[in-house]
Amino acid sequence: MIEFQCDYAEGAHPKIMERLMTTNMDQTPGYGMDVYCDEARRLIRQACQREDADVQFLVGGTQTNTTIICSVLKPYQGVLAAASGHINVHESGAIEATGHKVLALSCGHDGKISADQIREAYEMHMNDGNAEHMVQPGMVYISNPTENGAIYYKKELEDISEVCHKCGLPLFMDGARLGYGLMAEDNDMTLADIARFCDVFYIGGTKVGALFGEAVVITDPLIKKDFRYMIKQRGGMLAKGRLLGIQFQVLFEDGLYWRISKHAIDMAMKLKKALVECGYSFYAENNTNQQLPIMPDDVLEKLSHQYSYSFWEKTDSTNSAVRFCTSWATKEENVDALINAIKKYSKK
Amino acid sequence: MIEFQCDYAEGAHPKIMERLMTTNMDQTPGYGMDVYCDEARRLIRQACQREDADVQFLVGGTQTNTTIICSVLKPYQGVLAAASGHINVHESGAIEATGHKVLALSCGHDGKISADQIREAYEMHMNDGNAEHMVQPGMVYISNPTENGAIYYKKELEDISEVCHKCGLPLFMDGARLGYGLMAEDNDMTLADIARFCDVFYIGGTKVGALFGEAVVITDPLIKKDFRYMIKQRGGMLAKGRLLGIQFQVLFEDGLYWRISKHAIDMAMKLKKALVECGYSFYAENNTNQQLPIMPDDVLEKLSHQYSYSFWEKTDSTNSAVRFCTSWATKEENVDALINAIKKYSKK
Amino acid sequence: MIEFQCDYAEGAHPKIMERLMTTNMDQTPGYGMDVYCDEARRLIRQACQREDADVQFLVGGTQTNTTIICSVLKPYQGVLAAASGHINVHESGAIEATGHKVLALSCGHDGKISADQIREAYEMHMNDGNAEHMVQPGMVYISNPTENGAIYYKKELEDISEVCHKCGLPLFMDGARLGYGLMAEDNDMTLADIARFCDVFYIGGTKVGALFGEAVVITDPLIKKDFRYMIKQRGGMLAKGRLLGIQFQVLFEDGLYWRISKHAIDMAMKLKKALVECGYSFYAENNTNQQLPIMPDDVLEKLSHQYSYSFWEKTDSTNSAVRFCTSWATKEENVDALINAIKKYSKK
Amino acid sequence: MIEFQCDYAEGAHPKIMERLMTTNMDQTPGYGMDVYCDEARRLIRQACQREDADVQFLVGGTQTNTTIICSVLKPYQGVLAAASGHINVHESGAIEATGHKVLALSCGHDGKISADQIREAYEMHMNDGNAEHMVQPGMVYISNPTENGAIYYKKELEDISEVCHKCGLPLFMDGARLGYGLMAEDNDMTLADIARFCDVFYIGGTKVGALFGEAVVITDPLIKKDFRYMIKQRGGMLAKGRLLGIQFQVLFEDGLYWRISKHAIDMAMKLKKALVECGYSFYAENNTNQQLPIMPDDVLEKLSHQYSYSFWEKTDSTNSAVRFCTSWATKEENVDALINAIKKYSKK
Repeated sequence: MIEFQCDYAEGAHPKIMERLMTTNMDQTPGYGMDVYCDEARRLIRQACQREDADVQFLVGGTQTNTTIICSVLKPYQGVLAAASGHINVHESGAIEATGHKVLALSCGHDGKISADQIREAYEMHMNDGNAEHMVQPGMVYISNPTENGAIYYKKELEDISEVCHKCGLPLFMDGARLGYGLMAEDNDMTLADIARFCDVFYIGGTKVGALFGEAVVITDPLIKKDFRYMIKQRGGMLAKGRLLGIQFQVLFEDGLYWRISKHAIDMAMKLKKALVECGYSFYAENNTNQQLPIMPDDVLEKLSHQYSYSFWEKTDSTNSAVRFCTSWATKEENVDALINAIKKYSKK
Repeated sequence: MIEFQCDYAEGAHPKIMERLMTTNMDQTPGYGMDVYCDEARRLIRQACQREDADVQFLVGGTQTNTTIICSVLKPYQGVLAAASGHINVHESGAIEATGHKVLALSCGHDGKISADQIREAYEMHMNDGNAEHMVQPGMVYISNPTENGAIYYKKELEDISEVCHKCGLPLFMDGARLGYGLMAEDNDMTLADIARFCDVFYIGGTKVGALFGEAVVITDPLIKKDFRYMIKQRGGMLAKGRLLGIQFQVLFEDGLYWRISKHAIDMAMKLKKALVECGYSFYAENNTNQQLPIMPDDVLEKLSHQYSYSFWEKTDSTNSAVRFCTSWATKEENVDALINAIKKYSKK
Repeated sequence: MIEFQCDYAEGAHPKIMERLMTTNMDQTPGYGMDVYCDEARRLIRQACQREDADVQFLVGGTQTNTTIICSVLKPYQGVLAAASGHINVHESGAIEATGHKVLALSCGHDGKISADQIREAYEMHMNDGNAEHMVQPGMVYISNPTENGAIYYKKELEDISEVCHKCGLPLFMDGARLGYGLMAEDNDMTLADIARFCDVFYIGGTKVGALFGEAVVITDPLIKKDFRYMIKQRGGMLAKGRLLGIQFQVLFEDGLYWRISKHAIDMAMKLKKALVECGYSFYAENNTNQQLPIMPDDVLEKLSHQYSYSFWEKTDSTNSAVRFCTSWATKEENVDALINAIKKYSKK
Repeated sequence: MIEFQCDYAEGAHPKIMERLMTTNMDQTPGYGMDVYCDEARRLIRQACQREDADVQFLVGGTQTNTTIICSVLKPYQGVLAAASGHINVHESGAIEATGHKVLALSCGHDGKISADQIREAYEMHMNDGNAEHMVQPGMVYISNPTENGAIYYKKELEDISEVCHKCGLPLFMDGARLGYGLMAEDNDMTLADIARFCDVFYIGGTKVGALFGEAVVITDPLIKKDFRYMIKQRGGMLAKGRLLGIQFQVLFEDGLYWRISKHAIDMAMKLKKALVECGYSFYAENNTNQQLPIMPDDVLEKLSHQYSYSFWEKTDSTNSAVRFCTSWATKEENVDALINAIKKYSKK
């Protein structure tokens, strides 16, 4: 079985494993107060062109989303997010468990929300005579890329950022797959742009070369304050915190993060091209590492004996949308084999 | 600087690192549903002599304590624990953040609580005419060894277990340092005893040879039910869950967990013997990997240039209690050097 | 200004005020442990034909909804409710503040949900391979009448109840306006039916003749257990609890609750008839005390100088849906005056 | 049976009942937005000599304590309070249910805490190298009078206020029995002093003449902001809010609050004098409406056939501390009868 089901099927990039080996018996203080974390913080600040940013490391995405969101919101506030956003659908109610409603905004298959939607939701609340009886929007959550692989363009993010600042809503970007977004062919943003437009965001490691780990970048002074208490309380403060520092140091000391992200994109684009050639349309067309073709169920069944993918949804009685994921670890020979199989089974 | 400050200063045991390397490019499903986790579960059930136990893996201690406790308690219940217990003092209010009071029971320097204390607390509540206006005891939390290195003896744990079952209070043991407890010279329990007396407990990996990881063993069917939803919601479900499975597999496939625990104890006992010979008394005397001597401040100051330790508390104007930790990774030559330094500085 | 804006504009029915006066200097124990509460409990059990029911009194609706829902759900569960349900829209996130997601089911203007919707939502969750990553449905919330005045018919409620029991989902009915529902002309249920089909529900006093107060009727033994701890913890245990007992005693000792509910319905039907005669359609047609006609904005503007109503929503560029409420306190002469005004302004 | 068990055994002062009757059929907007509430707000601001204060009305004490405390604290903060404080002991974990630890400070039988204790707790936390692993003190809760009837003197409160402001800890006073405190013979503060020294406090109505109701006075602009969302979310926003406004209007329009408080004190002092004459000592000596003598169990047993009191605790094998409460409603003839009985039974 060759796995295209997700982007966290393997361990870590060999360079990371090697560094974990060579540093293994070093003695360091715990909880992210070590030299590796400090160096990783410096590298990430540099990459973001924000010397003033606070950088903290957490282990996983749900933990990171929860910790950030409940740090920002007041008890009577909720977080605006796309209805299909990870926090609204796939975190077992982690946000609500911290006492906050996810204020879902309708979205298309791309999973994106717009500056206009945010402004309208905010104004509708503030102008309502019964506002006190409703949840007040308190921040905005977006993912880039989204759950379905779409990316925000610079103008879109700039507009969102502007609306957020006008409304006093901190803007938080979930960047679990940020590398894959920023390496997409049609992307027009840099990491520095992200840091400039967002009040807090994270650079995903788990899905982009690390064993685990998400690097939170905070530019808003209010969110920086006492954030480490929140990490500890939410169970996100790794005892051997240096494991996170070491991994992000390797990823950012010579651009490895970008190179391996680019590889995943190259593999995804090769697959996308083949799918287009076979005449398939997409549930949500994109240029990142998650390709979501709509394919006949009989073709999918045949593929499933050798290739894994994720089922997304039935689109009609004989077709389904599915997801093929590439990652930093995807081997080109496996993509080629998958393409051949798709071509073979798709022939009439 | 040679570190005796804590038991999580290094990475992982070399055998674990090696296995992580050899399995690194394997493709597995996420979230602990892989073959490594299954094998580790099997080994742990076997070691516990409980084929019916549910075994789940989480990353760290605070996360594990929080997830278990809020899984068990009803909204109006609290958890009985020693006043010096980790959950009452050193988790930034993580338990309260889930809505529950820690019902602190007074304890000595050893950090232990007794069956009688539990029964009295429970009966005092149940017999109070205003019980509805107070927090109802809903479970019991103990650590073995405690924060200060003391262990529970079989008769003590059996009594606690009996009281808990009579009162309908699930018994939860925090075993972050369980290996060091069970390898103590005066310990009279096996892992199977622990599994028999507790409704849920965990076997600590973070402090005993792993990079990170705690193996939760659940014998109570009510706690088993839907526990994985709780892990996910509390941010404890590691995407690459196999990392936890692989580590516990290595620790339990041939008794490595016990051998490296024994090593830490041997090192601690060598140090303890030297401290006794120097005439020092202990803040809380014990036979586990945390030695807490009371020493003159001037001796401590001299030691501090080469050896790290944790400050515990001032005991009088010229003496302090401090903690020296050994671990699976402690080198005997470093213990010898520390002993020599202590002897030298302690001479009048 | 004559108020038709809501059903809580006045104080209490004169009989209640009188009884509060005559009992005012009686000395009773607090917290609902007095003879008045006991007598009210007896009367309500009798009216429900459920001698085994537990009856508890709380002050207001949001408090009652919150207390019940967080008593029932486990931490990883959410409550299924109509998207337009009070708990989803108008309680400032009170449910989420207890840690639980409101799982919104789509509904029409009537605000009702069906047995099929509940079963589908439950089965979709349980059959999802990623169920652990999502909020588990844990109970069902319905209002009768709904926010928009619609009522459930016996067959509908019976079906819902059956599905709920099959799925293990406790069924909770918000009866803030229950009297107005059960007195509607087309209603085919009794209070005993409600008690039979629901696991827990409440009989609203605040909107039906009392100064304040909601009588919670619990038939499910699991919800009964320790429910008073929850009332206290959630701030709903009134010190002078007898105030609640006295009011419900007056309402239920000789059928006053039903007589005054019937009066509100009579007034509403008189108004509805006039609205129909004027050719108006309804946002959500119903036979309870909330009438929601769609009327021209210019007519509404003229009415607004003498008669208050609630704005519901713009239905097109020149018309709006509004709400006229009647209650136990509505004077027929005021309804007649309103009808005359509507007729006058509605003439072309 | 003549009740001295608590200060909420009767209904409301006759003047309040009368006003509730005369206003009963008035039509007003809900949720405290009516003219009665506005007038009560004006009167209370005036009595506090704080035109800038925000005044909000809630129904009961637990609800008020919870709403205020969870409005002020950040998620990782706790509230400093006396170990015997109501929020730490008698609210069923309501504070913890909002996610916050009560940081208990040791106190004597009087139930008071000092400025020094607050400063020490704050500094100990801030100077701890592991502060991030502990709950940060975020505000201070005191009761005046305390649970055991003691009052704070002006110098004490001024010192507490000063420390709080230096440490950035908002100061909150629970004034459930504030009238009884300010009318005590040895009291040296005015309501204006309270308003000057506290950031938020409440004037208790439930125990001082009202059917129910607590008037929250907020002087800190940060706590004022959006406080009504919190009231709604916590279930404390009474639909017929005017009931609270009317009651506080009656209490404050001509000094009724102070006159009836004085009456309770006069009755308590008469009883205290008699207890002293009989040679009894006190569990916690005070000059407010709760008298806590230590009396022989046989005397108490005899009294109990005609007079109710609250059992406090066994002080030795033959004596117990008990509480006799007076209130605005206590009849002098009943106090005289109680005194006679005490004198009779106390004779050797």
